Amino acid sequence: MKGFAMLGIGRTGWITKDKPACGPLDAVVRPVALAPCTSDVHTVWEGAIGERSNLILGHEGVGEVVEVGSLVKDFKKGDKVVIPAITPDWSALESQAGYSMHSGGMLNGWKFSNAKDGLFGEFFHVNEADGNLALLPKGMDPATAAMLSDMVPTGFHGVELADVRFGDDVAVIGIGPVGLMAVAGAALRGAARIFAVGSRAVCIDVAKKYGATDIVNYRDGGIIEQIMELTGKKGVDRVVVAGGDVKTMIEAVTILKPGGRVGNVNYLGSGDYVLVPRLEWGCGMSHKQIHCGLMPGGRLRMEKLAALITTGRIDPSLMLTHRFNGLEGVEPGLMLMKDKPRDLIKPVVLVDK
Amino acid sequence: MKGFAMLGIGRTGWITKDKPACGPLDAVVRPVALAPCTSDVHTVWEGAIGERSNLILGHEGVGEVVEVGSLVKDFKKGDKVVIPAITPDWSALESQAGYSMHSGGMLNGWKFSNAKDGLFGEFFHVNEADGNLALLPKGMDPATAAMLSDMVPTGFHGVELADVRFGDDVAVIGIGPVGLMAVAGAALRGAARIFAVGSRAVCIDVAKKYGATDIVNYRDGGIIEQIMELTGKKGVDRVVVAGGDVKTMIEAVTILKPGGRVGNVNYLGSGDYVLVPRLEWGCGMSHKQIHCGLMPGGRLRMEKLAALITTGRIDPSLMLTHRFNGLEGVEPGLMLMKDKPRDLIKPVVLVDK
Amino acid sequence: MKGFAMLGIGRTGWITKDKPACGPLDAVVRPVALAPCTSDVHTVWEGAIGERSNLILGHEGVGEVVEVGSLVKDFKKGDKVVIPAITPDWSALESQAGYSMHSGGMLNGWKFSNAKDGLFGEFFHVNEADGNLALLPKGMDPATAAMLSDMVPTGFHGVELADVRFGDDVAVIGIGPVGLMAVAGAALRGAARIFAVGSRAVCIDVAKKYGATDIVNYRDGGIIEQIMELTGKKGVDRVVVAGGDVKTMIEAVTILKPGGRVGNVNYLGSGDYVLVPRLEWGCGMSHKQIHCGLMPGGRLRMEKLAALITTGRIDPSLMLTHRFNGLEGVEPGLMLMKDKPRDLIKPVVLVDK
Amino acid sequence: MKGFAMLGIGRTGWITKDKPACGPLDAVVRPVALAPCTSDVHTVWEGAIGERSNLILGHEGVGEVVEVGSLVKDFKKGDKVVIPAITPDWSALESQAGYSMHSGGMLNGWKFSNAKDGLFGEFFHVNEADGNLALLPKGMDPATAAMLSDMVPTGFHGVELADVRFGDDVAVIGIGPVGLMAVAGAALRGAARIFAVGSRAVCIDVAKKYGATDIVNYRDGGIIEQIMELTGKKGVDRVVVAGGDVKTMIEAVTILKPGGRVGNVNYLGSGDYVLVPRLEWGCGMSHKQIHCGLMPGGRLRMEKLAALITTGRIDPSLMLTHRFNGLEGVEPGLMLMKDKPRDLIKPVVLVDK
Repeated sequence: MKGFAMLGIGRTGWITKDKPACGPLDAVVRPVALAPCTSDVHTVWEGAIGERSNLILGHEGVGEVVEVGSLVKDFKKGDKVVIPAITPDWSALESQAGYSMHSGGMLNGWKFSNAKDGLFGEFFHVNEADGNLALLPKGMDPATAAMLSDMVPTGFHGVELADVRFGDDVAVIGIGPVGLMAVAGAALRGAARIFAVGSRAVCIDVAKKYGATDIVNYRDGGIIEQIMELTGKKGVDRVVVAGGDVKTMIEAVTILKPGGRVGNVNYLGSGDYVLVPRLEWGCGMSHKQIHCGLMPGGRLRMEKLAALITTGRIDPSLMLTHRFNGLEGVEPGLMLMKDKPRDLIKPVVLVDK
Repeated sequence: MKGFAMLGIGRTGWITKDKPACGPLDAVVRPVALAPCTSDVHTVWEGAIGERSNLILGHEGVGEVVEVGSLVKDFKKGDKVVIPAITPDWSALESQAGYSMHSGGMLNGWKFSNAKDGLFGEFFHVNEADGNLALLPKGMDPATAAMLSDMVPTGFHGVELADVRFGDDVAVIGIGPVGLMAVAGAALRGAARIFAVGSRAVCIDVAKKYGATDIVNYRDGGIIEQIMELTGKKGVDRVVVAGGDVKTMIEAVTILKPGGRVGNVNYLGSGDYVLVPRLEWGCGMSHKQIHCGLMPGGRLRMEKLAALITTGRIDPSLMLTHRFNGLEGVEPGLMLMKDKPRDLIKPVVLVDK
Repeated sequence: MKGFAMLGIGRTGWITKDKPACGPLDAVVRPVALAPCTSDVHTVWEGAIGERSNLILGHEGVGEVVEVGSLVKDFKKGDKVVIPAITPDWSALESQAGYSMHSGGMLNGWKFSNAKDGLFGEFFHVNEADGNLALLPKGMDPATAAMLSDMVPTGFHGVELADVRFGDDVAVIGIGPVGLMAVAGAALRGAARIFAVGSRAVCIDVAKKYGATDIVNYRDGGIIEQIMELTGKKGVDRVVVAGGDVKTMIEAVTILKPGGRVGNVNYLGSGDYVLVPRLEWGCGMSHKQIHCGLMPGGRLRMEKLAALITTGRIDPSLMLTHRFNGLEGVEPGLMLMKDKPRDLIKPVVLVDK
Repeated sequence: MKGFAMLGIGRTGWITKDKPACGPLDAVVRPVALAPCTSDVHTVWEGAIGERSNLILGHEGVGEVVEVGSLVKDFKKGDKVVIPAITPDWSALESQAGYSMHSGGMLNGWKFSNAKDGLFGEFFHVNEADGNLALLPKGMDPATAAMLSDMVPTGFHGVELADVRFGDDVAVIGIGPVGLMAVAGAALRGAARIFAVGSRAVCIDVAKKYGATDIVNYRDGGIIEQIMELTGKKGVDRVVVAGGDVKTMIEAVTILKPGGRVGNVNYLGSGDYVLVPRLEWGCGMSHKQIHCGLMPGGRLRMEKLAALITTGRIDPSLMLTHRFNGLEGVEPGLMLMKDKPRDLIKPVVLVDK
C-alpha cells in the first residue's frame, strides 16, 4: 500500500509499505476523511519527536473498517468509524489510574505517526478496536467528524483542565483550531466572558461565533495589559493555553486570579524550561494551579463528543476552510498547515472522491 | 411599613410592621422587582416550615439600598442590587467548610420568609451586605434579574450537584421554572441529549428553547419506560430532580447508569422517607451517587450568574409569563403560583410603576 | 479438577469440573491461600444473586500462576499473585468512565462465584491477567495478602466514598472484617474521632487497635442517640456503612452533618427500598451526599494496597482469627462465616499444607 | 505595650506601641505560647515582604482572650485560644470561592507581621474572632498547640495540594518543621512509601518517626537520581515541596509520574521564574499537575487539626527541640531560627513563666 510519510526531519514523500497486520484485538481501517495537523508539521519540520524515517503521517480521521481481529466484539468490516488520535492500552496501570493517554509511559497513548504509522496511507492499524473506535453517527458528515479525532477533544480538554465553571471569566491563548475548540468548549461549559487571544481575522470571526466575548490581539499591545484592563485589574478565573511557547505561562499565570487554573494543551516544542513568574505565582502560595495534558482518547470520549455534534451543541465544520479530494490531498493539505495562509483554519481531505 | 404576609397556615394578608433596623454589617433595601415562588405557596398553604404568624413573604427580587450599616464597605444608599434568596453568615463553620447555605445549622442560610421577614414589604433587611448583595449590572432588566435570586441558582445547582460533563445524557425531572433553569444549565454545562420530563405546553416550549432534545410527558406512560426506550436501555448519565415527591427518587435512580449522579433541588415537603430502589441501586454497590442541596447564595454567586445573562449565555426572561405592577401585585402574583394556570411559568412584580 | 460449589440455594458440596481453559489474555491460577466471605454466605443461603447450580464459590485469595495466554506480557507460570475479587474488562466503556467495577454492566466486574467459577477449586481462571493480577510482594504472608482481595479494598473504598479528610469525625456502622478495614482506612486517611458501631468483643478489640476512638454498642441504646450525645448534638462529618440493612441509611443520614457524606459498601440483600429520612435529609436540600459502590479491583489497586502492608501502614492479619489447612478447609471455613461464632472475625485457608 | 519588632530590613528590637484597639467583630489576645518561624527570618533578614519599620513580628501562638468586640458571640475574656497564622475576611469574594487565604487579594489572609502587628507583643489583635479563633482543647499543651498555627496546617496543606491517596509513593522535599509535618500528613493520608529529602540528623530522626520509609540525602547525590533508583525508574505519585528554591520544581516535576501532582508550600523568596522542565513535563502534555498554596486558616481548620492531636493521630511536640520562657524569649528563639544550629527543629516560647 502507499502512504504519505516523513522520510526524515524536513523531508516528506509517498512511500510503499505492506498493509498492516491485524492482531486479535485490533482493526485495520481505510481512511474516508483525513485532516493534517500542526503536530504533523512539528514532527516533520521541527523534529519534535526526533528523527524518524518512512513513518506514515496523520492521526486525525474517519475511516471504514476492513478487518477486525478474532477477539473484537463490537465492530465489523464495513463499519464507518471515528478514529481518536490517542488510542490507549486500556489495561495498563496508567489507564487504571485514570490517565489512559499515558498508558505504558508518558504520552504513550499517542501511537499514530509516532510509535507506528499514521492514517495517511491506504490502510492503517488501530489497537484495541473495541476500546478505541467509535461508530460514525448516522448522517454525520465525515469531514466534520474528522475534527473529533484531535481538535475537539484537545480543545475541550483544555477547558476541562482549566476547570471552567458557571460564570467564570476565561482567557483562551491561541485561536488556531484547538484554541477555537477551547473557546467553544468554554462557552459550552458555562463561561461568562471569554477573552480570545489571537490576531488572524478568519480565526477571530469564528471565535466570536463560538462564543468569544472579547478579542485580544497581541499586535495591539501586551496580553497581560489588555486583559487586566478589560477585567478592571481583576484578571480571569481560568486560562486555556492553546498556543505560544514556554514563555506563554508567564502571561497565563499573571492574568489569573488566586485560586484560578491554567489548562495547557499546547505542545511545547522547544526551550529548556517553562517559565512560571515567581511573584505573580504568589511566591509559591497563590493557589494558581497549573494543569496540562494530552487529550483523552478512546471510544467513550469519541462517542460523547460526537453526541455534542449530533445534538447541535457544537459545529466544528465552521473551521473547515479548505477541502481536498483523494488520498493524495494529504500532501497539499499538510503544506497548507505548514504555510498557514491568512485564510486557513483547518483543511480536510475527503478520500472517497 | 406595610407588607404581604403569612398570617397563619393557609392565610395571607397585608400587615403593618416597623421598618427593619440596620445592624453594622447589614443593609436595608426597598424592592424594585419581586417574584413569588412555589416555596411561598408551600410555606403558606402546606405549612412546610411550620406555623408562622405575620411573617412577610418573599425571597426573590431586586431592590435599591436605602441604608447600610457602619461596617459596610462596598454598598451605599441608592445602589440597585440583586438579592439572593440565601444570605449566609459567612464566618460560620459550615461556610468555612464550603456549605454556606447551612451556616449556623442545616438550611439556616435561608432567612427570608423563614427566620425573618421576606421581601414582600416596603423595606427588607439583608444580613452581611458586603457578602450577600450584588450590584445590578447596568442595563439589566430588573424583572429578568429577579430570576437570579432563586430560579437560576437553584436550577443551575441541580446541574452542579449532578455533575454534568461534556457529552452526558441528562434527564431533568420537572420543568417548572427551576427545572427549566436546570435544562438551560445542563445545556450550558455541556450535556448532549437532555430529556425534559413534564407535561405543560408552555413549559415544554421553553424547555426546547433552553436546549431540551427530548420531551418526556408522564401522561404518555412511565418515565422509566420512556427514557429507557429512548436511550436504547442504557439510561442516562445524570438526573436533575426539580419536581415530584419522595417517590421520584425511584425513577431517578432507576434511569441512571452505574457511576451516574442524581442532583436533587426539589423541596420535599411530605413523606417520611425518600425511597431509593434497592435493586436498581445495585444492592448498594452501583456507584449511583445521590446528591441534594439548597442553592448557594451570596454575592459571588449572584455576580457570576448575572454575568451569564450579561454575556447572553442564558435568558431567564423567557419564563416570565405574567407581570404585575406595584407592590400590591405580589398578592395576585402569589395566587397565580398557587393556582398554576395553564399559561403560567413565572410571574414577576415591578414595584416601581 | 475438584471444587467446593454452590449446588443450589441453601446447598453446597464438592464437585468435579474440567480445569478452566485459558484465553489469549487470561491466566489459570492454582490457589495458595483462600478466604471465605460473607458474600459467599449470602450467595448460597440467601440466594442473593439468584439460583445457581454447581458454581464454584470463593473470590478472595492468593495463588500461583500455572498457565498464561499468548498475549499476556507481565506474568508467567510460577508467579505468586494476589487475586482481586473484582476483575474488570478494562477496555469497556464503564472502565473508560472510571467505573471499571461496572465494566459491561452494573456490578459486572464481579465475575468470581457470580458469572463464572470462583477460587475454591484446584484451579481458577483470571480474565485480562496483565490488568488484573498483582505479584505477591516478596516476604508477604499469603494469608495476610488474601485480605487484599476484598476486605481491604472494600473497607477502604467505603472511606473513599465517604471522602474522609483531615480531622473529620467518622462513624463506621458495622465492624465485621469490612467495617474493621473501614476503621483502619479512616484512621489512615486522617480521621480524628472514629465511632465504631458494633457489639462483638473480638471485633471491638481490633477496632480499637485499628484506630477507633469511641465504641458505640447498639445493645446499649440507639445509634443515633448515642452518637449525637457523644458529639454534643453536632453529628459526624462522614459515615461508612459496612453492615445493617435498608433501614441503616436512616441512622447514617440522621447522624450526618449538612455537607457530610455517606459511603455505603454494605451489600443490601433484601427490601424494596433503601430508606432516606426526609426531614433529616433537609427535605432534599441538606447536601448530605449518599455514595455507594462495589470495590475497585484490578492490578493497580492491588499493588497500591499491598504497598500499605509492605510499609507497615496497615496490618490486616489482626483479623485472621481462624486458620485451616488444605483446599478442603474452605468448607469448614465457610461454615464458620455462616455461623459466626463469638470469637470469629475472618478465617483463612492455607492450601499449601 | 512592648513588642519584638522588625525595625527595618536586617534589624530587630523591642519597641513600645499602644495596645491594639478591638473592633466590633474582633478580639484582643495576650500570648501564652509563641513560636518563631522561618518566615519571620525571611521577613527581617531577606526583606521578603519588602521594607517595614516597627512591625511586631510573629504569627504562631496560643493566647488568652482579654477583650472581644460587641458582635463577637462565641468567645469571651479568659478563653484560651489557638491563633491561626492566616485569619481571613470570611465574607470576601475569594473566601466565597473557597480561597479564604486570599480574601481581599492574593495572600491577604496573611495579616500578622505582614499587614499588621504580629503576636510577639504583650497583646495582639485578631480580626473576625468568631471565624478565626479556636478554643484550646482542655489539657492540650500550649507549646504543642502553637504548632497548629502554621506548621501543621502548612505541612498538611502540602499533602492536600499534592492530593495524596491510599498507597501512593510520595516525596517530601525539605524536612524542616513544615516538611516534617508534610511527612506526618502524608503518612496520615494513606501514603505507602515516603521519601524524605533532607540532610540534618535531628530532622531525619523525626522524619522516620513520622512515617518516612526512605531518607534521601542530597549530600549523597542528586535527588532525581536517588529517587528514580529507589523507585525502579518509575518515580513517585506525589511530591510535596517544603524547601528549596525556584529550581526545586525541576526535581519535583522530573521525579513525578504522569498524572501525578506537586503540592508546593515553600515560600519562594527570590528568582524571577519558577523553572518547570519542559521535556519532563511531557512538552506540556504530561498531566503532571502543579499546585501551590498558602495554608488555609480560620477556626474550623484549627479545630479539625487540633482534634488530630487530641485523638493522638499526630504529635507535633517531637519537633520542639528548644524552649524559652517569658515574652523576651522570642528574641533568642528567632535568632535560633536564623542560625539553624544542628540540633534545632523548632523553638517555642512559653510566655507564662
